Amino acid sequence: MRKPHKSKKKRIAKTIGKAPGADGYVGQKFRETTDIEIQDYSKEGVHVIKTNNVEDAFKFKTTDQITWINVNGLNHTEEISKLGHYYGLHPLVMEDILNTDHRPKVDEYEDYFFVVLKMLYFNKDEQFTVEHISLVLGKNYVLTFQESEEDIFDSVRSRIANPESRIRMFGADYLAFALIDTIVDNYFAVIEDFGEKIEALEDQVFNENPDDETPKSIQFLKREVLKIRRSVFPLREVISRIEKSENPIIEERNRDYYRDTYDHVIQINENIEIYRDMVWGLMDMYMTTVSNKMNNIMKVLTIIATIFIPLTFIAGIYGMNFEHMPELHYKYSYYILWAVMVLVFLGMLYYFRRKRWL
Amino acid sequence: MRKPHKSKKKRIAKTIGKAPGADGYVGQKFRETTDIEIQDYSKEGVHVIKTNNVEDAFKFKTTDQITWINVNGLNHTEEISKLGHYYGLHPLVMEDILNTDHRPKVDEYEDYFFVVLKMLYFNKDEQFTVEHISLVLGKNYVLTFQESEEDIFDSVRSRIANPESRIRMFGADYLAFALIDTIVDNYFAVIEDFGEKIEALEDQVFNENPDDETPKSIQFLKREVLKIRRSVFPLREVISRIEKSENPIIEERNRDYYRDTYDHVIQINENIEIYRDMVWGLMDMYMTTVSNKMNNIMKVLTIIATIFIPLTFIAGIYGMNFEHMPELHYKYSYYILWAVMVLVFLGMLYYFRRKRWL
Amino acid sequence: MRKPHKSKKKRIAKTIGKAPGADGYVGQKFRETTDIEIQDYSKEGVHVIKTNNVEDAFKFKTTDQITWINVNGLNHTEEISKLGHYYGLHPLVMEDILNTDHRPKVDEYEDYFFVVLKMLYFNKDEQFTVEHISLVLGKNYVLTFQESEEDIFDSVRSRIANPESRIRMFGADYLAFALIDTIVDNYFAVIEDFGEKIEALEDQVFNENPDDETPKSIQFLKREVLKIRRSVFPLREVISRIEKSENPIIEERNRDYYRDTYDHVIQINENIEIYRDMVWGLMDMYMTTVSNKMNNIMKVLTIIATIFIPLTFIAGIYGMNFEHMPELHYKYSYYILWAVMVLVFLGMLYYFRRKRWL
Amino acid sequence: MRKPHKSKKKRIAKTIGKAPGADGYVGQKFRETTDIEIQDYSKEGVHVIKTNNVEDAFKFKTTDQITWINVNGLNHTEEISKLGHYYGLHPLVMEDILNTDHRPKVDEYEDYFFVVLKMLYFNKDEQFTVEHISLVLGKNYVLTFQESEEDIFDSVRSRIANPESRIRMFGADYLAFALIDTIVDNYFAVIEDFGEKIEALEDQVFNENPDDETPKSIQFLKREVLKIRRSVFPLREVISRIEKSENPIIEERNRDYYRDTYDHVIQINENIEIYRDMVWGLMDMYMTTVSNKMNNIMKVLTIIATIFIPLTFIAGIYGMNFEHMPELHYKYSYYILWAVMVLVFLGMLYYFRRKRWL
Amino acid sequence: MRKPHKSKKKRIAKTIGKAPGADGYVGQKFRETTDIEIQDYSKEGVHVIKTNNVEDAFKFKTTDQITWINVNGLNHTEEISKLGHYYGLHPLVMEDILNTDHRPKVDEYEDYFFVVLKMLYFNKDEQFTVEHISLVLGKNYVLTFQESEEDIFDSVRSRIANPESRIRMFGADYLAFALIDTIVDNYFAVIEDFGEKIEALEDQVFNENPDDETPKSIQFLKREVLKIRRSVFPLREVISRIEKSENPIIEERNRDYYRDTYDHVIQINENIEIYRDMVWGLMDMYMTTVSNKMNNIMKVLTIIATIFIPLTFIAGIYGMNFEHMPELHYKYSYYILWAVMVLVFLGMLYYFRRKRWL
Repeated sequence: MRKPHKSKKKRIAKTIGKAPGADGYVGQKFRETTDIEIQDYSKEGVHVIKTNNVEDAFKFKTTDQITWINVNGLNHTEEISKLGHYYGLHPLVMEDILNTDHRPKVDEYEDYFFVVLKMLYFNKDEQFTVEHISLVLGKNYVLTFQESEEDIFDSVRSRIANPESRIRMFGADYLAFALIDTIVDNYFAVIEDFGEKIEALEDQVFNENPDDETPKSIQFLKREVLKIRRSVFPLREVISRIEKSENPIIEERNRDYYRDTYDHVIQINENIEIYRDMVWGLMDMYMTTVSNKMNNIMKVLTIIATIFIPLTFIAGIYGMNFEHMPELHYKYSYYILWAVMVLVFLGMLYYFRRKRWL
Repeated sequence: MRKPHKSKKKRIAKTIGKAPGADGYVGQKFRETTDIEIQDYSKEGVHVIKTNNVEDAFKFKTTDQITWINVNGLNHTEEISKLGHYYGLHPLVMEDILNTDHRPKVDEYEDYFFVVLKMLYFNKDEQFTVEHISLVLGKNYVLTFQESEEDIFDSVRSRIANPESRIRMFGADYLAFALIDTIVDNYFAVIEDFGEKIEALEDQVFNENPDDETPKSIQFLKREVLKIRRSVFPLREVISRIEKSENPIIEERNRDYYRDTYDHVIQINENIEIYRDMVWGLMDMYMTTVSNKMNNIMKVLTIIATIFIPLTFIAGIYGMNFEHMPELHYKYSYYILWAVMVLVFLGMLYYFRRKRWL
Repeated sequence: MRKPHKSKKKRIAKTIGKAPGADGYVGQKFRETTDIEIQDYSKEGVHVIKTNNVEDAFKFKTTDQITWINVNGLNHTEEISKLGHYYGLHPLVMEDILNTDHRPKVDEYEDYFFVVLKMLYFNKDEQFTVEHISLVLGKNYVLTFQESEEDIFDSVRSRIANPESRIRMFGADYLAFALIDTIVDNYFAVIEDFGEKIEALEDQVFNENPDDETPKSIQFLKREVLKIRRSVFPLREVISRIEKSENPIIEERNRDYYRDTYDHVIQINENIEIYRDMVWGLMDMYMTTVSNKMNNIMKVLTIIATIFIPLTFIAGIYGMNFEHMPELHYKYSYYILWAVMVLVFLGMLYYFRRKRWL
Repeated sequence: MRKPHKSKKKRIAKTIGKAPGADGYVGQKFRETTDIEIQDYSKEGVHVIKTNNVEDAFKFKTTDQITWINVNGLNHTEEISKLGHYYGLHPLVMEDILNTDHRPKVDEYEDYFFVVLKMLYFNKDEQFTVEHISLVLGKNYVLTFQESEEDIFDSVRSRIANPESRIRMFGADYLAFALIDTIVDNYFAVIEDFGEKIEALEDQVFNENPDDETPKSIQFLKREVLKIRRSVFPLREVISRIEKSENPIIEERNRDYYRDTYDHVIQINENIEIYRDMVWGLMDMYMTTVSNKMNNIMKVLTIIATIFIPLTFIAGIYGMNFEHMPELHYKYSYYILWAVMVLVFLGMLYYFRRKRWL
Repeated sequence: MRKPHKSKKKRIAKTIGKAPGADGYVGQKFRETTDIEIQDYSKEGVHVIKTNNVEDAFKFKTTDQITWINVNGLNHTEEISKLGHYYGLHPLVMEDILNTDHRPKVDEYEDYFFVVLKMLYFNKDEQFTVEHISLVLGKNYVLTFQESEEDIFDSVRSRIANPESRIRMFGADYLAFALIDTIVDNYFAVIEDFGEKIEALEDQVFNENPDDETPKSIQFLKREVLKIRRSVFPLREVISRIEKSENPIIEERNRDYYRDTYDHVIQINENIEIYRDMVWGLMDMYMTTVSNKMNNIMKVLTIIATIFIPLTFIAGIYGMNFEHMPELHYKYSYYILWAVMVLVFLGMLYYFRRKRWL
């Protein structure tokens, strides 16, 4: 994640001053074909269609059933454009579907809601992935636009397949809720992973030997936490505005579900704040540990030096070559000197112990 | 409290994408049987029933009296489900009763309030315990759901037993208040215990010798304070919303009691903030103490070294073996040298004393 | 102020789960008798009665005059209870009069206001005193409940005694204002005292030699500032709510006075914030001073060591006992060596001076 | 600004418990006489009167023209009292005119506004001056009360003198605006002066040698910034409340001017916040600089010591007086030893250079 | 950007106390002539006129077409004054057009909006430029006032030239949106440039050797971030107020576009906050790196000193000249001593390794 800036700069340079609505994908995930998955269902049954041709999706608009059209691959701007025009989406909506830098938000239009979210998940190779996903919720349809094929909606698909499930009874707003709720539930797993990383670092700082790489790891975690926070924080308002909207697209009986998701988002935000505090505290802890180690090093130096420097001085005195040094000729001088040195040594030890340096 | 994450991860993995309301206990406290305690009372008298069979609780719904059904052991999801269906609870309420990770909140439904709280207490073995407790307040019944058998409601039970008590005169909303108030009152005891731990650490940092373990203890306290804060902080809004609700379940005359509890919650929050400041300040104090100790160590080293290094140099000079060193042959050289050394020594001492290093 | 916690814990243990309104004094100031002082006045005149019998206070309720009943000694809960029942106070009010831990607040009941305040003052022995005081303001009476006999209301008493004073013209709400205003005015004196303590510490940190006790003093001040802040901060809302209340107990013409007190409270809060910043800054300053001192110590060590260590090495060279060391036999070696050593010494001095270490 | 506290304490002691409105000047600027300057003007012409007798100001109340009465010297409380009574000012207003400690505020009375401001300026001797100024804005008069003769209103006076100026066309509310706007404009000059001081300190910290006095200067600036902030911050609300007031004293067409001043106050507040951040950052910078210097000192010590300590040890070895030391008798020992020493020396240099310490 | 203060001071000194509306340019960019560019267009066609004579712009006011008049060079206050008077702009608007220090804001007048913005861009020489730009949006005209000839509006010009573009279909409010949107889009490019600078510094702090210049660079970035923040932050409210205005100048169908720009501004603010956190964190990282380096230096010193100081002492002992030192005469003394020294050396190494200092 070091050098995406330069390429992004060019991207932005391309779009500055353009009329809004001009379709331009600014992300970096490319797919060869547009994969479109259509689920058309009602209490009675489900039609599932997978296609690469966007026109296959058009005929479902007029049916009474609930239609979920999931589009993968935002680089095929033309097909997405067609679908957007067919469903009468505003040019600004078209722009924001493709602008993967956009923060989460909800826009309420007369006959549909437009929701931008960030999907965080671990992909097939267990890599952490941030994906831009937009969702259009109309009277009896839901459109979702994703960057890559992989997603986390399999559980929703199987609930649609189950004729007993609530999702089959309720409207498109419940489907949208189910999709958003799945995304939000997944945040828990992602931030938990963070919690574990933080605890591992904490162990390292406290118990094992933190090294010069530790502050880098802490700094890295800091930034990651800020990134996740940025994806999740605006969700609070997004979901609250859907829940409080008076648009008849949101049925009264489904508001409770959105409120529940709202509670979850608040809880996630709280957890992120706690992790944030913990990561910031980690740096302090690291500094304390380092400073304590330094203290111990200094202590050893001081003890050694303060013991031996005076002794060396005494030895130096009797290494002098003056002709007239009476002590040199006295028979027991050498032994007396040793006695003195041992006494100095023990005195120093006693002093250090009283000062609790040993 | 080091490694609960991994198990939690699995728990969450199990619930991601599930339809809400699907009953699933995510806590870690298991009980073999569901213990149900029913108190059915009015001004005239009290029936107390303890049972393991959830159906025993059903007949009280139709009575005119106030009914308090207390369920222990959230791992028996089926029985709780039955009770919930009997009392017509929303699937999301059923989910939140079992989701012990949920933060405190209140949801107002048409004919009942659903309140999630954290009960903090010291259990029989004087261990600090955090317990998830949910409370359903209907027209003339209160349901409480707890994780473990032990609780702090004995005083409420004895007030119910007392025919003179206000609790017998007033409605279910007063009972709910009494339960919530007992939980809130107990927070005072818990945070006081924290205050004592903080003061003990403060004494250690200030007066005794802080050791390398001290920052760990401080960090531990930091996290504990954040945890308690997280349990208590949302209560403010919870109780305010009950008090301000226009639902007839809350009688006008009982609002004052809720407002009083609200005052207590604010006071607890204030205390937590103060403890938080104190714990954060502790770390600074620790650093200062450590840094002062280091200073003293350095001072000793410097004094010893600056006194003896020059003296050793002088001794070294006259230890040289040049043939032509006139001082060596002069009779009083040695005594003069001692005089010089003593003067240097005293000069140094004077210098250090003037600099206030001694 | 070190060990009040343990006793407090017992106190709280006693009250957890009790029905509210159950009278229980939790403070620590005990008086043998209840002292009651009654001032019954109108434009025409003043009756002052001092008694220990609470029933003496009852007859004034029915008079048309303004009655101020001041009760000293909260440990006599029974007498206070009687008075409370006579004046029809809510059980929660009775509880809060005795709960000296309660934070400042105002509760508006139908026919009276209940105000909790903290009175900060220097008592007869010039000791800093925090006292819990509650005030009940009814149509034509004011009740005040204090912990100890001493108070700061003498100026109000003398204004009541003065037949020309505004206090005699206006109603009970003006009397309540005068009492609150006196309490608030006294905060200025208290926080000024703090300002002086802070400045003294600042002088110590800057100019004199801060010692190892200094951080303790700073920490102590920190906590004191937090304590005062906690007493004063909630007052803002308390007074604002009285002023904005539409209760006819507060006369229109007296609202300006309450607004003025509100301004004073804001100003005090501002001053406290400034002192808080100053105390926090003091710790930084102390650290800086200590760190500067350490720097100077290190500098001396380094200068001495870097000068004499190389010189000692040179002396050591010529102290060696090799048979073949030509320099030893050269006549001027010794003088040349001295010259070299002086040059090294001067070179070092020059280097240090250029580096601005000297 | 070190010791004003003691005198202030006495002042406050005098006013605690006094009835509000009791006139008492608490400032420290004394003038022998009350200087009163009256400007009575309309489109047609201007009368300017300077007098020491407050009764000279009374006759202008009844004229139709705009009257600006400027009173200098707040220690003459009696004259100010007279003027206040004549213009029907509330006792609390009288109190606040004299209470120079009061923070900026606006009070709206039925037929006048009362505004308290702080005038910051550089006086004739280029000294920074904080002056308490109050302003009463009535239907067709403006009263201003200042502590000292000097002020910054000369530009307003000359605009009144100019028959073409807007000030002559518009009402008293425009005059009040002009006065407030002049005060606000002057804040820019004052905070700019701060900016320069901060930059000078920054230069000192970065480029020149910061000394032990630097933290004192920084601490001094910190406090000054807080003081200015305290004078300016409340202005935001003051001016906003004048602008939004529905009182007919403020003409509709003049609201734009007040809004413009409001914008300026916001801008000043923003600048103060920036300066605040800068001053706080300065302390960090100072610490960093000091810490870097320390590092360099330690480096020199370490390099010298690690080079010469081992060499001295080697020299010491061959200074020993053992009878049997074969090296001593070998002819080239001395030269070999020098070679070894030079190698050790070069090796150390290489090591330090690789570690980038040199 | 070091010394603009002095000149600014004079500027401000000139304007203090002046009547508002008095035209006075306070910026520092001077142009010889006023360049005026007029675009008068409708669906049918476009007239583009470039002139230096302000009167050429007057005739377009009465046309039904949309007119965009762009004025370059704010130092020609007289011409701007003329244009302002012709379009009936308020004197305060005239003042703010020329006051380049003014923060972004919007003022709504009866028949026009007045918007102040900061244009940030890289000019022809790739230098970072901050330019004050004001925009007046009337029923069918837009006036823009810039300091220098260069701007970032070329893309808007080409969209006007394109007969198919939305800008030709919609009203003046859409033109104003297009201009503001272009300015906002450009902020992205500018803050990205910052991101790169921050990352470069981060690399320097982490991987390469940070030097004494690094804190200066960090401090510089800190201030730059604050400056940009100050330009961008108020935009949030500016655009929100335009969008929410009920003035018919803003057509209903164009509100979505303003809301979209509002989203962008929020996103930019968020990015700035993130960069701010990063820059602040950089300083901490730098301190940590420096402190780690210091630790390593101290470690080397300590290891060398603690190894050789005792050894030197031992050598010193046997350099003494006592007559009676039996060891000196023993044949293997010298070899035994070497053995002892090697053992001490190895023991020290082992100790350091166990302490993980090596």
